[in-house]
Amino acid sequence: MWMKLCSKCGERAEIELDYARMHLCDRCFVDFYERKVRETVKKYKMIGKEDKVAVAVSGGKDSAALLFVLRKLFPDLSITAVHINVEIPGYSEECEQKFRELARIVGVDSIVYNTREKLGITTPDFQKTVYKDRICSPCGTIKRYLLNKIALENGFTKVATGHNLDDTVEVLFNLYVQGDIQQLVRLRPVAPSTHPKLVTKIKPLIEMTEKENLLYALKNQLPFKEAPCPLASGSRSRERKKLLEMIEGKMRGFKHTLFSSHVKRILPVLEEGVKLPSFVECSSCGMPSSEDPCAFCRRIKMVRGNP
Amino acid sequence: MWMKLCSKCGERAEIELDYARMHLCDRCFVDFYERKVRETVKKYKMIGKEDKVAVAVSGGKDSAALLFVLRKLFPDLSITAVHINVEIPGYSEECEQKFRELARIVGVDSIVYNTREKLGITTPDFQKTVYKDRICSPCGTIKRYLLNKIALENGFTKVATGHNLDDTVEVLFNLYVQGDIQQLVRLRPVAPSTHPKLVTKIKPLIEMTEKENLLYALKNQLPFKEAPCPLASGSRSRERKKLLEMIEGKMRGFKHTLFSSHVKRILPVLEEGVKLPSFVECSSCGMPSSEDPCAFCRRIKMVRGNP
Repeated sequence: MWMKLCSKCGERAEIELDYARMHLCDRCFVDFYERKVRETVKKYKMIGKEDKVAVAVSGGKDSAALLFVLRKLFPDLSITAVHINVEIPGYSEECEQKFRELARIVGVDSIVYNTREKLGITTPDFQKTVYKDRICSPCGTIKRYLLNKIALENGFTKVATGHNLDDTVEVLFNLYVQGDIQQLVRLRPVAPSTHPKLVTKIKPLIEMTEKENLLYALKNQLPFKEAPCPLASGSRSRERKKLLEMIEGKMRGFKHTLFSSHVKRILPVLEEGVKLPSFVECSSCGMPSSEDPCAFCRRIKMVRGNP
Repeated sequence: MWMKLCSKCGERAEIELDYARMHLCDRCFVDFYERKVRETVKKYKMIGKEDKVAVAVSGGKDSAALLFVLRKLFPDLSITAVHINVEIPGYSEECEQKFRELARIVGVDSIVYNTREKLGITTPDFQKTVYKDRICSPCGTIKRYLLNKIALENGFTKVATGHNLDDTVEVLFNLYVQGDIQQLVRLRPVAPSTHPKLVTKIKPLIEMTEKENLLYALKNQLPFKEAPCPLASGSRSRERKKLLEMIEGKMRGFKHTLFSSHVKRILPVLEEGVKLPSFVECSSCGMPSSEDPCAFCRRIKMVRGNP
């Protein structure tokens, strides 16, 4: 047995990053991680001094790492942690608890939005609709809508989410296979506001792998819920991530290369050629949308039925 | 043991096409194959009545299937089989022999071009250059150049090659991962002539899998060399094809879907946004090229040295 040494300082290494052919000790890993997030934020001009950032925190490892690293890198920045509780039994309660602990430790203001209290709906309600066990889709739509609404109503200028490289490449891979140009154009580190009621979305961890976020959360002893959402088990997304790991195993750096090729080379050409759909105002909620009623209101109606 | 029945006629099936969830008997397979090639030719407007087609035939299964099926589908079309012998020991001699047999059976005129006789070079010569054991690259450049030249000098209006779906998707996959826009724009079923000295290239088998071409060649008892080129063994291309089979295994129809998404959805957007480089005339051979001297002349010079 050989002892692996840190590629940076030569001390005993604890962490292996295959894609970069690096071994790192704990301290150098944390340093490496923070430098890399700072570079991503800078490269894509994600945050300015005057920004008021709403950080979406689910209770999981990625968003825990996000909240912690943003506070550490930008101590003077206005940051508020936002949590949406969609009331998944045996899951959401602990997520909210982890969220509250984390917000306290990090020392930021927080907002908790409970969909049952505010809207009278929960994510499991969608199991009784056409979505059945594919409820990640409506749950995602509702959370995206609410994050934007909360940001808008509270005067936040950016919404930051913890999407990691693995999430992104999984979606990217599917979109390329399907040739879904409209969605490919939207998949980017910063989705700038295209309407006064839409707040700019940023993804500061988009170049960090799931593993890196997990390690960063662990090394900083952040509170987070380890178990994945019980309603997402067996979802196509998880199967697809296994496939991508398999490709990465045969083609080192695949995920990083595909992402960077998309952003640097293909996206600029697609952006020129693709017209984004124009907005209409949702007659039910007044938010901008490509359709009326908007995706959020249509889904809410599915669960509530017609009044 | 269950006997599988033909999805078309109900007879005993001999062939399984996973991607299409079909079982076929020999006769229905041949019929299916020929209909599909005819559709591809029609869909991409590959061949007109007045065309004089040079079919590039290597001696392998794909181009054997191509020559045979084109003659069968278009009995009145002017077809000439063209073979380039690059003198790979223990390989090229038998390829040429299979080519001659095939051209005789199919009943078409044929042209054999021997690179040693005509140019004083062979593919193995490149092993002594910077290419070392990556000589598929210069070999491909030289064959593409010569096919165009032979077509031009003999008044052919199209050059047809036996590129199959697996070849195409392997290249496509790499180009997307690398974000190589310039090459992505060139990867299509028909490469129309963009200069008077460049003959239009067509790929009538681009939607047929390697397996389908092999089966078609076998069912029609066509002479072809089964062993792959000994100089390509261990090439990245073969490793990559294994990876794509693995993806196909987890994602049925992956190859067909990626190809069709590329051609129908992504290519039209890329074509609008990408400017193809303008031509200069190669000062050595007079052919149009993006650089002077052209890729062919540069490679020839590598082997011959400066006179």
